[in-house]
Order: sequence, then structure tokens, then C-alpha cells
Amino acid sequence: MKKYKPIDSLESPRFCGIRTFMRLPHVPTAEEADFAVIGVPFDTGVTFRVGARFGPEAIRSISVLSKPHNIALDVNIFDYCSGYDYGDLPIVPGFIEDSYEKIEKGLSPILDKGIIPVLLGGDHSITLAELRAVANTHGPVALIQFDSHTDTMDSYFGRRYNHGTPFKRAVEEGLIDPEHSIQVGIRGSVYSKDDLIVPKELGLEIVTAVEIQQIGIPALIQRIQDRVKNANAFVSFDIDFVDAAYAPGTGTPEVGGFTSVETLQAVRGLAGLSLIGFDIVEVLPAHDPTHVTAILASAVAYEFISLIALKKKMQA
Amino acid sequence: MKKYKPIDSLESPRFCGIRTFMRLPHVPTAEEADFAVIGVPFDTGVTFRVGARFGPEAIRSISVLSKPHNIALDVNIFDYCSGYDYGDLPIVPGFIEDSYEKIEKGLSPILDKGIIPVLLGGDHSITLAELRAVANTHGPVALIQFDSHTDTMDSYFGRRYNHGTPFKRAVEEGLIDPEHSIQVGIRGSVYSKDDLIVPKELGLEIVTAVEIQQIGIPALIQRIQDRVKNANAFVSFDIDFVDAAYAPGTGTPEVGGFTSVETLQAVRGLAGLSLIGFDIVEVLPAHDPTHVTAILASAVAYEFISLIALKKKMQA
Amino acid sequence: MKKYKPIDSLESPRFCGIRTFMRLPHVPTAEEADFAVIGVPFDTGVTFRVGARFGPEAIRSISVLSKPHNIALDVNIFDYCSGYDYGDLPIVPGFIEDSYEKIEKGLSPILDKGIIPVLLGGDHSITLAELRAVANTHGPVALIQFDSHTDTMDSYFGRRYNHGTPFKRAVEEGLIDPEHSIQVGIRGSVYSKDDLIVPKELGLEIVTAVEIQQIGIPALIQRIQDRVKNANAFVSFDIDFVDAAYAPGTGTPEVGGFTSVETLQAVRGLAGLSLIGFDIVEVLPAHDPTHVTAILASAVAYEFISLIALKKKMQA
Amino acid sequence: MKKYKPIDSLESPRFCGIRTFMRLPHVPTAEEADFAVIGVPFDTGVTFRVGARFGPEAIRSISVLSKPHNIALDVNIFDYCSGYDYGDLPIVPGFIEDSYEKIEKGLSPILDKGIIPVLLGGDHSITLAELRAVANTHGPVALIQFDSHTDTMDSYFGRRYNHGTPFKRAVEEGLIDPEHSIQVGIRGSVYSKDDLIVPKELGLEIVTAVEIQQIGIPALIQRIQDRVKNANAFVSFDIDFVDAAYAPGTGTPEVGGFTSVETLQAVRGLAGLSLIGFDIVEVLPAHDPTHVTAILASAVAYEFISLIALKKKMQA
Amino acid sequence: MKKYKPIDSLESPRFCGIRTFMRLPHVPTAEEADFAVIGVPFDTGVTFRVGARFGPEAIRSISVLSKPHNIALDVNIFDYCSGYDYGDLPIVPGFIEDSYEKIEKGLSPILDKGIIPVLLGGDHSITLAELRAVANTHGPVALIQFDSHTDTMDSYFGRRYNHGTPFKRAVEEGLIDPEHSIQVGIRGSVYSKDDLIVPKELGLEIVTAVEIQQIGIPALIQRIQDRVKNANAFVSFDIDFVDAAYAPGTGTPEVGGFTSVETLQAVRGLAGLSLIGFDIVEVLPAHDPTHVTAILASAVAYEFISLIALKKKMQA
Amino acid sequence: MKKYKPIDSLESPRFCGIRTFMRLPHVPTAEEADFAVIGVPFDTGVTFRVGARFGPEAIRSISVLSKPHNIALDVNIFDYCSGYDYGDLPIVPGFIEDSYEKIEKGLSPILDKGIIPVLLGGDHSITLAELRAVANTHGPVALIQFDSHTDTMDSYFGRRYNHGTPFKRAVEEGLIDPEHSIQVGIRGSVYSKDDLIVPKELGLEIVTAVEIQQIGIPALIQRIQDRVKNANAFVSFDIDFVDAAYAPGTGTPEVGGFTSVETLQAVRGLAGLSLIGFDIVEVLPAHDPTHVTAILASAVAYEFISLIALKKKMQA
Repeated sequence: MKKYKPIDSLESPRFCGIRTFMRLPHVPTAEEADFAVIGVPFDTGVTFRVGARFGPEAIRSISVLSKPHNIALDVNIFDYCSGYDYGDLPIVPGFIEDSYEKIEKGLSPILDKGIIPVLLGGDHSITLAELRAVANTHGPVALIQFDSHTDTMDSYFGRRYNHGTPFKRAVEEGLIDPEHSIQVGIRGSVYSKDDLIVPKELGLEIVTAVEIQQIGIPALIQRIQDRVKNANAFVSFDIDFVDAAYAPGTGTPEVGGFTSVETLQAVRGLAGLSLIGFDIVEVLPAHDPTHVTAILASAVAYEFISLIALKKKMQA
Repeated sequence: MKKYKPIDSLESPRFCGIRTFMRLPHVPTAEEADFAVIGVPFDTGVTFRVGARFGPEAIRSISVLSKPHNIALDVNIFDYCSGYDYGDLPIVPGFIEDSYEKIEKGLSPILDKGIIPVLLGGDHSITLAELRAVANTHGPVALIQFDSHTDTMDSYFGRRYNHGTPFKRAVEEGLIDPEHSIQVGIRGSVYSKDDLIVPKELGLEIVTAVEIQQIGIPALIQRIQDRVKNANAFVSFDIDFVDAAYAPGTGTPEVGGFTSVETLQAVRGLAGLSLIGFDIVEVLPAHDPTHVTAILASAVAYEFISLIALKKKMQA
Repeated sequence: MKKYKPIDSLESPRFCGIRTFMRLPHVPTAEEADFAVIGVPFDTGVTFRVGARFGPEAIRSISVLSKPHNIALDVNIFDYCSGYDYGDLPIVPGFIEDSYEKIEKGLSPILDKGIIPVLLGGDHSITLAELRAVANTHGPVALIQFDSHTDTMDSYFGRRYNHGTPFKRAVEEGLIDPEHSIQVGIRGSVYSKDDLIVPKELGLEIVTAVEIQQIGIPALIQRIQDRVKNANAFVSFDIDFVDAAYAPGTGTPEVGGFTSVETLQAVRGLAGLSLIGFDIVEVLPAHDPTHVTAILASAVAYEFISLIALKKKMQA
Repeated sequence: MKKYKPIDSLESPRFCGIRTFMRLPHVPTAEEADFAVIGVPFDTGVTFRVGARFGPEAIRSISVLSKPHNIALDVNIFDYCSGYDYGDLPIVPGFIEDSYEKIEKGLSPILDKGIIPVLLGGDHSITLAELRAVANTHGPVALIQFDSHTDTMDSYFGRRYNHGTPFKRAVEEGLIDPEHSIQVGIRGSVYSKDDLIVPKELGLEIVTAVEIQQIGIPALIQRIQDRVKNANAFVSFDIDFVDAAYAPGTGTPEVGGFTSVETLQAVRGLAGLSLIGFDIVEVLPAHDPTHVTAILASAVAYEFISLIALKKKMQA
Repeated sequence: MKKYKPIDSLESPRFCGIRTFMRLPHVPTAEEADFAVIGVPFDTGVTFRVGARFGPEAIRSISVLSKPHNIALDVNIFDYCSGYDYGDLPIVPGFIEDSYEKIEKGLSPILDKGIIPVLLGGDHSITLAELRAVANTHGPVALIQFDSHTDTMDSYFGRRYNHGTPFKRAVEEGLIDPEHSIQVGIRGSVYSKDDLIVPKELGLEIVTAVEIQQIGIPALIQRIQDRVKNANAFVSFDIDFVDAAYAPGTGTPEVGGFTSVETLQAVRGLAGLSLIGFDIVEVLPAHDPTHVTAILASAVAYEFISLIALKKKMQA
Repeated sequence: MKKYKPIDSLESPRFCGIRTFMRLPHVPTAEEADFAVIGVPFDTGVTFRVGARFGPEAIRSISVLSKPHNIALDVNIFDYCSGYDYGDLPIVPGFIEDSYEKIEKGLSPILDKGIIPVLLGGDHSITLAELRAVANTHGPVALIQFDSHTDTMDSYFGRRYNHGTPFKRAVEEGLIDPEHSIQVGIRGSVYSKDDLIVPKELGLEIVTAVEIQQIGIPALIQRIQDRVKNANAFVSFDIDFVDAAYAPGTGTPEVGGFTSVETLQAVRGLAGLSLIGFDIVEVLPAHDPTHVTAILASAVAYEFISLIALKKKMQA
């Protein structure tokens, strides 16, 4: 198997060259590898600020700062892994159901080869399509959702598909296994108290932000580990999990959220789980003048890849 | 008839109060008046940068700078006119055909009462819905389109409705009378030479930017007047008619365009025509850090209203 | 009594319509209600960066994201309350004493009807005028001030009225009851040690930021509750209480301050007190490119309203 | 006489050192020289956007790019002139009449020594105070005003002193000689047609923007020269003379204005006149993210200084 | 020969995929083609604002808007040409002479194959290295330089290589043929009158901005054509040729320059000449919040490519 | 000895006057004082984003907000100290070794007089030159480095001097005493695990960010105090020690870092040590739209000066 890894930034400065994630090779066909970074520039599903279609570009742009060895997890990614940037999946802007089909179809060759996808959104509506593809390969999976909103509305403006509804649909379609699924970081305001009851009725576990702030991140990690157990799990990370000060570039920012320290700590806490896919969504560059949202999203994606490598290191 | 006019800014500072266009009263029902300013915050039709749903808010915000007397046209608007801000028409983000229905239906009460609408977009796809409503009342109208693109593609990504196709559809649906219609300011690059032939085949007249730069604005005005003659005309102004330096906050900016002086001169040149509706579209606030695009869009809408008043002054 | 509540955002997208606070109806006359949101776009009192006159517009713009049910306080506001957006009070830019008269007079009809005002500044100098109006109705009140500065200078540049002096004046004029009043979050640098002694000599309690960082927010809440007790209290929240990273859009930003989590926790800690008015001041949109300051200010105002509703829920 | 001139930027890079205008020495006492650059960071007089108090800082920051030899006027400034940066005049933010006294008094030592002041505002209200100082020394002077507004309102919000009224006051106080005075670039909208009649009644000549766009800059120059003749003249340049696309960072931007080429051409056209003072006002850095407004303001001030040098060259 | 052309944007939205110039294939080896777009992210040569190393990324990002058919020149590029994005040349940030070697060496394989390079800078110091490579292949060439500065200083801070000196060096090294070379757009301020004499002494022709504004663009084009004649010519376009309002994102912006209309008109005027290479330099994204500078730079590079195609069309 | 202290901001507003640090007098010769603030606008040493040459200007601009009395340390600086702004040291942009010589030479007169320098960078490469000057006067010193990177690479792109290598060079040149030196805050990703071993092999102590987040700031302070003991110490503070949300304006931002509260707490924890010099580096204004990075850097420099004053207070 060919080994895919980044350009050496001690030889070639990091600001040089075509922007791929982490300066990995751009491989547009589903060649064998441990992971593939994949853009999904779709944002027709949003209900407020729009523009996450430029999220993959912004994350790739800043990801060139990342180096191979992760200090916190003590793992050198490319000692254990091979990975590339697959480019973006095809979508049709303005047409959500067509795009769902294209995303599902586009992701299949990657999943079929056992490559772990690290998807860069796009708005949160895309996760439904991703989960359809994942369920085709893996059957229903555990969902680990970092988010300030549950995204389990039944509809918005009389419409069933948008970034407020994917997880209601996913349960209805049998794509996720609610018993091992968990939503963490929920906060702010909702239309009514029922909005918090719905996910519970769907069988999902919820941990609100206020709760996390009381129990702390280590206890949150334990809650996640206890819930997910040995199930194959998909991690869906909405950047608005993070406090608006740390991630202003998003569609429906929420204050009272998490710092980047807490965020990275929580993500690293997924070590050991059986993680079969990841996405990070709702990065909106036009509202991110300091790029700090993209920097954090890139760091989260980097931790995702590090988790893949760490798993292989532990298994080695 | 009740007279609607702005708050007096010599008594109350312009930065005070709820933002309506030009500090006009907000009248959400179709009361009698000469004109109504109406937002259409829809942007699902775009093929590149998105966010024109916030265009009406941005234009209203800066429009408070406008005062009643137009120096260039020498008319005090509210000596001759009554007008209000009708608020925004209902739309469904992410669903273009549903939104078309709502826009058409929402606009009808205004047109039925003989009130001239001044519409604030939104992306250029909305004009098709507006023209449907207009044609219901007036029959086919002349179209005067200021734009850098013809927006007469047949489809994009296999889809027939978006901001690249409205005027092909409008001709096909018989909403506009091509013989009295004209598109001015066309420039940049196109997919193929055929893209410029299509509008001609549809019966529209085209004046490219390079042509205008050779003949000058007064000659352009003559071309428009000669084309439209006595027909009822709808003016559709895409802010990317203007050079990207004067209007950077738009979805598909084009350089090599017009200055604000040329723009205002051209718009004022419509004086005397029988203008039964106006829109100004594709203002994208997230890419407009200096607000200069919104300032110009507000000024264009102000000229539209001045033209309505001037007509009444000339008829008085 | 007519019930005033926001437009339903499940029917009409949140980015549609004229911007009022939380999409509440705009009611410019003092109709009966539980609370009224009121702008005070005055900023002539500042000693450094200026522009808080655009604070109310910015807060209203982003407040459309807020929904009726508060997760943290577990209260659905409009199950217990009716409220509207009163628009802005009249002021005279550049003339502080004239403006004080207009603010005081403008606020009286609201207070007379027993409506709780939630005021959106403007710079901190406005609080003196608000307190004059409040004292007319309620007599001297307890002051709960969140701020990084005590604002108890005697004068600046030889002048007695500006945003550095309102609370010295308020005590001198007998508008507040020092014994039940408290200033929290004080930090940074001062002209001399005496600046910290003055508030104590005025009878106010001070809790510095360093102190709060040692004792924690729950202990701070206890300090406030113990100080205010049953007194009628006015809450004045200067956004520079918050750390400059969480609220950069303000006139004299201070680092070493509080996060949004701590801020919301502290504000929620006022539950149970007899709160008869609120303001949030010093939001400066021109220095807030990510809107994060406005987002947080909107969230604080939302908590203020939630506290009003919670009180009614507890009394019900 | 000591010769004051800039640091040599071929030896020391232009981004080094404490920022003074054009890297001139900072001389806070009125030493003998041909010209002095002086800041007037006062902005309490504005009726819309505020923040021109940071104008002098922004202009100084970018002025370090200017080099001694002016290509267009063919003059090496420091072959003929000595000049320094005097720093800022004292003012009292929030108190216009006090500030007027301080500005008038602060400017006198410079005028007394025959040094030509090049003043950096601040809002346009400051010009009244400057003209009082100038009239003390020179008697009534000709006014050459570049502006999109006449600033000859009688009052705003019932108040006589602000940035909308200085030139009405100046004529009333006998500070300017209307017969040799001229206002150029007037455009946009006004409260009523009377607003254009007032300056004429005061004896001033007006040339509107539309007129200038018809006759061209050379004819405008002739109009100015014909009007001013041999009178001592003060040049007051409001940056909103320039089109909003070229100068977005200002308090009440107007589109339909002049380009930087036209602006520089017009200013250079003042060569030969007897110019005894200059100001450039209404630069608002918080709305100038590209710094292009400050760049242009700095270039205009540079032309002012070049005109002083050219006069001396021609007299040499 | 394989035909390289852009992805079809009617099938795949323009915001999708890894960013290469105009969505051309990324071909990092010197395969046969008519042209290659090449980044040179080097900016150590600047004397004021720095950051043009991110110029190639910004230009590529926005270039996805360009479509194959050029309306103004009436040529469909890929009917006549094949071209790709070669990526970036190697450089060593902070070390100008090392970088010169790498640029020269990196460019040779392209020139050796007769491929016309379209280089995206980087600061203007890179042109010296490019000209060294060009002269190796073509011998001394005509230089057509669009710029506001002559860049013919002998040294800066005692150093001979930086963005102020390349063309003095180029003449000294015999890389360009002064008799057929021309610098156009020179303006602003210089250290002394000698700075304008140097290029003439080097044998170059200069046309200042003021001169161009008097004679007009068509006459400028004639001047260039008359000067260059049949010589092989290299076009070096410094974005500060353009007025700062149209291109604020650059290191040493100058007002009093050219509009985008004039710029495109001038570049198109090079049609018919024997153009063997192009660069566009000094785009500085960190000072380009609206992206308008990158948009214009992309348009200029697009015209360069169109000129290559037009030449082939005319020869066909 | 003459006493140098800031202008009184109760008399003269803080936004007035030429910008020096904290409104101190600008004294360009090494007059006697306790401390001197000195700019080092050099940034040729960076490997990614560039522009820290404008760091000193930005820090000075916002530092005018600082007042004499430090609340947290309870010391009025100018009761115990005299200090001034020395301006910037000479450097040669683009030439690192020349600049090193100039920095070393430029700093000597200050050190020779026993004045404590507070240096404002510039990129981190400058610290090597500063340490050379310091070692000339004091011999090898303890280094207290706040940073997210160790900056102990051997070379980058084959070059030994840049912002990634200064501390490897400093140990090799015997400028610092590793046994009393400590690097704190290290985090993110590195090229390989060896990168963390190198500093240990050089004899330096490292405390990673994750470690600090576990043990807390008070324990970190103890670690520093225990390491440095009585040695003369130089404090080098890279602003990327701070989390990217609190300091986005820097060249290689890292998330997962420290808040401003933690940062100030850590810096204040140096009280009692024998501190003989300070720098704060890597502030990059072009990426700092809210100025929050400059605000924090200014606050850190203010704490440095407060530590100098506190030492004198304790000794008094």
C-alpha cells in the first residue's frame, strides 16, 4: 500500500503550494488508505446565516499549520497512518434532496474500502446524508454529537430537511442506534420545553452545557464512553458547540459554551472508542475575520485523525 | 388618503429608532400609497457566494441617511408622494419553488392597489417571481436590466431555477415583452460565446460594458429610452452592474464595471418612462465591511423613489 | 390585557422582517405589558472610543436568534410575560444634560405603568438619567453594577457628567441606596489607589475581578444576594465586565475579565431578587466585526427578560 | 532658523519609530517653520457615525509612506520648506463650546508666528473654531470648501453648534468673506430645496457634484481661481467630497462623488492662490478597514504641504 | 498533446474542490501545454507592509469565478489553448538570494518547454529572478511594467536586493533590453527628482500616471506598442498600478491611479505583441477584506491568458 | 534624576497626541530611568504569516488606555519608577544577521545605564539578538519563556536563524543559563517527538499546556520560581502562549491555550524574581481586527513595568 503523508514543512514553507488539508496529497480516487479528508460544501439547509459552503476551503487553508506529531496524545500520525485529501463531494446548491443523494453516493467508495472519512462541512443538514452512507456499510451506528442545538426538530417552515432536523430523520430512518447515542453541549434558547423532550423520546441521551459546566469535562467523557461502549460510532461536531468567542464564524452562534481547551480535552476523551467516521460542520468563513473558527475546526479535525492513529498505535 | 413620510431627522437623530427604509413608517398591510419598499430576503438561488438574505436589513440600516429632497433630480419626494416600508415578503429558505409562490402571492395586494413596489433582494432568482406577480396585474412588461450577467442560462447543475436563469424563464413564461426589453452592463467571462447569443435569440437587446464605456452613459440612456418607449417597464438592478470596487458586497463581483457616478447618471436617465416596479438585488452584507455596497444600493433605491415622485411632479 | 410576543420563527425565518428585539412587536406608546425593551442611542459621554449610539441597532439585529424557552432557567418567557420593543428614547447627540432630561422624561411613562424597562445603551453615562427616572417612581434603589470600572470619578477634563462619573452623581443625588448596592468585576488600572477608595466612601460594596476569580461565581452571587436583600434593585451591566476576548466591541475594553459562561451564570444568579429595571451598555458595533459582543449583550438582555418571567412563574 | 524635515527612509525603514506625520520631528512648541501639521481629535459635533477623534492617528500612521519629492507638482518639499508635527490641540470630548475655545487658543501661537497650519480632524464642526483663530490673525478669509454637504444648516435638534452648521456660523461671525468663498462637490439628498438656497443667501458660491461632472475638473479649478482671486484663503476639505468607494471611512458617506484622480487634480489646481491654512476632516478609521480613506487623506495633506512648497519655489 | 482545461462549472459548482487557478488541473511537472500558472509566494523583499506570500492563495481562491470565453477579446481560451496550474516555486522565506536561485531554477523547465508562464507573486523583488530565467531561454527581453513605482533604486538600507531595486539590477545584468522597455503608471512621491531620471538613464521609457490621465488609455497603448514592437516581451504588473480604491490589498498603495476599466483596457491593448511571460505581483490578502484586490488580480491574469489564446486564434 | 511619567489623562483625553507607550515621553537617547519601552519592528524571521513589524505601533496605540495604578499588584508605578519610550531600534528588513547586529548594538546603551528594557516585537527571532546584548552586560541569564512553541529547532529550510531557532542558538552561544531556564505553555503539533526532547537535551525545563491545565497557574508559578531562584532572568513572552481566541493576531496561532486571566495571573507570579529584561513578541496587527491581541500585549507589558515598580516598592 502506498503511503500518503504531508509535504515536509522543514523543507518547503507551509504557505507554499495548492491548499489541501494538512498539505496531504490530493487523491480524487478512492485509493487505499487509513483515512481521507473530504469536503462537503453544501449550505442550503441553514435557517439563519448562510455560507458554510466555503468552510472546507477555509479549514484547508489554515490546516497547513498542523505538524505530524500530536503532543497531547503523544502520537506521530504518519508513523501509523496513511491518508489523503479526497477533494469535495458533488452537491447541487439550492437542492437538498438531490444533494443528499450525491453525498451518499459520493461517500460510498471511501467507506467500501474501509477508509475512515473525516468530513468538512457544510451545514449540519449534510450529516443525514453521511449517516445514510455510513449505515449502508456499517448498519446503524452510535452517534456522538457535539452541538449547542439538538437538531431534532420535526420541520422548519413546513419542510422536513434542513440543518434543524437531521437527527430526527436519522432516528426515523434507522441510521443511528439511539441507545448508544449522545448529544452534548445543548444550551441557549428553544422554541418550547418540548424541544428538549423530543431527543429523549427518540431515545438519545442529552447533556446540556450547564450540566457539563457543573460536572466538568472528565465526567462528560465518562458519560460518553459509558453510553457508546463498543458500538461503532460516528462523531458529528457542530462548531457552535464551542463558545461564540472561540468560534464566531458559524451560522447560529451561541454564547455560554466551551473553550478551545475544553473542546480539545473532550475530543481527545474519545480515545479507545470504535470511531468509524467524523464530520465537523457549520464553519462560516464570511463571519470569521480572525480565522479563529477555522483554526479551531482544523485542530478538531487534526485530533480526529490523531485518534485514528492512536487506535492503530494501541493496536500495534 | 393618509400621507406616509419619514421621521424628521432635524428633530430626531438619524441613528435613532427601529430601522425601516429611509425612516418611513412600517405598514405591514397594503394601505394606499404611491410606493412601498419591500424586502425579499431569499438567496437559495445563488451559485457562488451566499447571504443576500441579509441584503434588506443592510440597505434599511444605511438608508436612514437619505433626506427628502433629491438635488440631482430637483424633486422633494414627499411633496408628491406617500410611501411606507411594507416589511419583508414571506419565503422558505432552501426551497426556491415554494418561495416563488409566496413572493408572487405576497406582492399581489400591493400591485392590486396600484402601489409601485421597490423591492430589496435577495438574489436575482427572485425577479422571476416578482415578474409573475407584475404580469398578473400589468400583462407582459418591458424589462430594463442593469447587470454584469445576462442570467439567461437554461440551467445550472441540471436545475432550471436559480439566479442564472430567471430571464430565460421570464421570456418563456411570457412575463416580459422582449421587444421593449434591454440588458445593460454585460461583461467578464462566460461559458461560451453562445451565452451572449441566447438573450438575442430570446429577443432581448444587450449592451455590453465595453460598448457602454465606448459610447458613454448619455448614449446608453438614449438606447434604453428608444427601446422601452411607452411600454410599462420593470427595472431590475443587479448590484454587480457596478464595479467590484464600488460594490464589493455581492455574490459574483465583476471588475471592469461602472462607478457610482455613472450608475446614478444611468438610473436618473430613466426619467419619463412608465416605470411600474423596481428591484435591487444581490447585496451581500457579509462581504461588505465598509458598507459601501449597501450605501450605493440604498442610493439606487432612493433614485427609484425619486423617479416615481418626479413623474408625479411632471404630471402635476 | 393584550399579549405581546415574538413572531413564530418556525413559520417565518428569523432573518425576515424589520428588526425589533427578539422579533417582538414595535409598540411606540406605553401600552400595558410586563416588560419593554428600549434603546438609548447616546454616546457623547465617552472618554475614549465612541459609537455606542449604534448599540441598540446591533443588539436588535442579532436578538432575532433568541427563542422563547430558556433552557438554563427552565422558563418559557411568554407563558408568563407580555412584552414589546418600545423603540429608542429621544436624545440630543453632543449635549449630555439635554439628553439626560429627555431620557428621564422618555422613560417615565413606562415606569408609571409598572412596566419593567430593559434598556439597551448607549454609553454608561445614560444610567444616571435612567436612575433619576427610576427614583422618581421607586425612590432610591439598590444598584447591582457589573463593570470593570467603578465609574465614580468626580470629573474628567474638569467636567462632571460623562461615562466615568455616573455613580458618584447617583449617590450624591440620592438616587441609589448605597447600603444595598454593589459593584462587581472591577479590574485593570486606575489613576491612583484613591479611585478604589471613593466607591467605598460613597458606601458602595466593591468586588474586584481578582477577588471573584479566587472565590468563584457562586460565592459572588451570594455576596450580591446578601447585599441587595429585599430592596428594589436596578441592574446596570457594562459589557466591559466581560473579558475583551468575549466582548471586544466596547469603548474601553479590559482583559483579565469574565467568560460568557461566567457572565450568564452570574446574571442568572440574580433570580429571586426584586428587580425593577435593567440596562446593558457600552456595546460598540464598529469594533465588533464578529458580532460576538452584540450576541453576548443580546443574551444578557434575554436573561434579564427571563428573570422577569421566572419571578412571575415563581409567584404563579 | 532650524530646518525640520523627515527621517531618511532610505536609511531607516518607514515602519520604524513613533508615528508623526510623514516622519517629521514632533515639536510641541511653536518653533519657527513654514508649516505645522496639527491634529484636532474632536468628534462631538457629528450627527450620525462618530469616531473621527481617531482620524489624526490613522492619517499619521499611513503618512509615513510619503516621500519628499512630489512628482505631479514637480517640487521637492524640503528644498523649500521646514515643517514639523505639532501634535494635537487640546479639546474636551462631549463639550463643543469648551473645545472651540481650546482649539482657537491652541492654534494661535502657530498663526502668530506665520506658520501655515495643516490641520487633521476630527469632525467638520472644528473648522468654525479654526476659522475664529484664523480671523484673529488674518481677518475674514476666503473659504474653499470641498464637501458633499454645505454644512450651513441653522441648527440640528435645536442646537446651533455641530458638524452641520459651521459655515452658517462662520458667515454670521464675519470669519469668512463670502464673496471670495466657494463650496464644491455638493450632492446627494437634503431636507428641502431651501438647504441649497441658504448658502447662496449667505453669499457663498456653490458648485454641485453633478455640475462638476458635467464641466470637468479643469473648469472647476477655473471657477475656484476666479472666485478666490488674491484673497487669503483657507481650504477646508471634508473627505466625503470623495466618493464613498474611495473614502468609505467617514461619518456620512455619499456615493456619486469624486475619484482620487479627480480629487488630487482639483487640490493641485489651487496652486498660485494665497493659502494661509488647511484642514482635512471627517476621517473615521473604525469604518476604514482597508485604510484607503486614511491613505487618501494623507495624500491630500501631502498635496497641501506641496502647495506651500511650490509657492515658495515660485517665489524663489 | 494532452489538453488541460478547467472543470465544467455548469456541472460542478464553482465553490467546490481544491483551489487551483481557474479550476485548472494541478500539474506539478512541466508537461507540454501553452501556458502554466505558477505561484511565487515570496515577500522578504518588501520595505513596508508584508504578506504577499499569501497572494497566490488568494488569487487562486477567487479565480474559480472565471469562465472560458472572454467577452471583451471575443476568444474562448480553451478552443486555442491548453494550460494548467503548476503550483508554487520553491523559495526560502527570509533569504532573498537563495530564493532567487530557486526561482530561477524552478522556472527553467517551464521555459525550456516553450510554455508561457503566468506568475502570481509575491512581492516585486521576484521579477529579477524570473527575468534571469527568461533571459537564459530568450536572451534580453522587452519589459512592459505596469506600476506606480519605477523600482529602480540602487539600494535600500544599504542593500541591493529588494522590491525597490529589481529593474536597476535587471538592466545592469543585461536581462532586459531597455530600448524596447517601458514603465507606465508612475506616480506619487519619490525621494528626489533623480529617482525619475535613473530609469531614463538606464534607457527605459517612463509614462507617468498624470501623463496617462491626460492622453488616455488608447494613446498609452500606442506608446507601448510603438516601444515594444516585435521584441519578445515580459509583462510585469504590480497591482499598485491600480488606484488604492480598486486594489487596497497591497504593500505600498497609491491613490491617484487607475480604475479597473482602464486597467483591463490597457492590458487588452497588449494584443498582438510577442508576449513570452507575465507576472502579477504585490497582492497582499491581509489588507484586502473585500477581496477586491484579488478579484482584480485574477481578472488581470485571466486577460494575460486570453492574450495567449487570442494570439493563437489570430495565427490559426 | 529627571522623572519621566505619562501625560495626565484626567486633563488630556487619552486619544489625543502622538502615540507612545502609555503616553510616556519619547526620549530617543539613553537618559537615566528605571525602565525604557523599546520597539523592535523586525519580522523577517517568520516561517508563516508575516507582519509583526507593525506590532510596536499597534501596542503603543492601545496602551494609552493604561493608568498608573495597578489594582491587582497594588502598586502605583510612577510612585516608584521613572520610564520613557525610547522609540524603535534600527533594523534592516529582509536581512536577519545585519538586523541582529543593529539590535544588539542598539540595546547596549540602555543596558549599560542599568535601565530595564521592555521590548515590543517583532517576531521571536529578535530575542536572540536581545540576549546577546543582555549577556554582554549581565553574563548568561535565566530565560523565562512563555510560548506555545519551544523555538529550539536546529534549522528551517536549511537556515539557522529564524523565529523557530533562537533558543537553540542562545544555549549554543552561552547566552542563557539552561539550569535556571524554563519554557512554559508548549502545545499543539510538532514535526516529531524529538522536537520536545531537544530543549531537554539543551538543559531547559519544559512545562506543556496540558500539564499546566492539570496543575493550574499557582503551581506553574511555583515551578518557575523554583527553577529561576535568584538568577538574573529575562522574560520572553510570545503572544501565542495565549489561546488564539484571546490573541488571534499572531503568526502561528494555537488553540488550546491560556485565557487572559490565566496569562495575567502567571505574569504577576514572577513578582520577587530578579528580572533584568522583558520582551513581548509576535503581535501581528493585520490579523487582529478587534485589536484584542494588542490590548492583551499592552496589558502584559504593563504588568512587566508593574513588576519593576513592585520590586522597588518592596525594596523601599
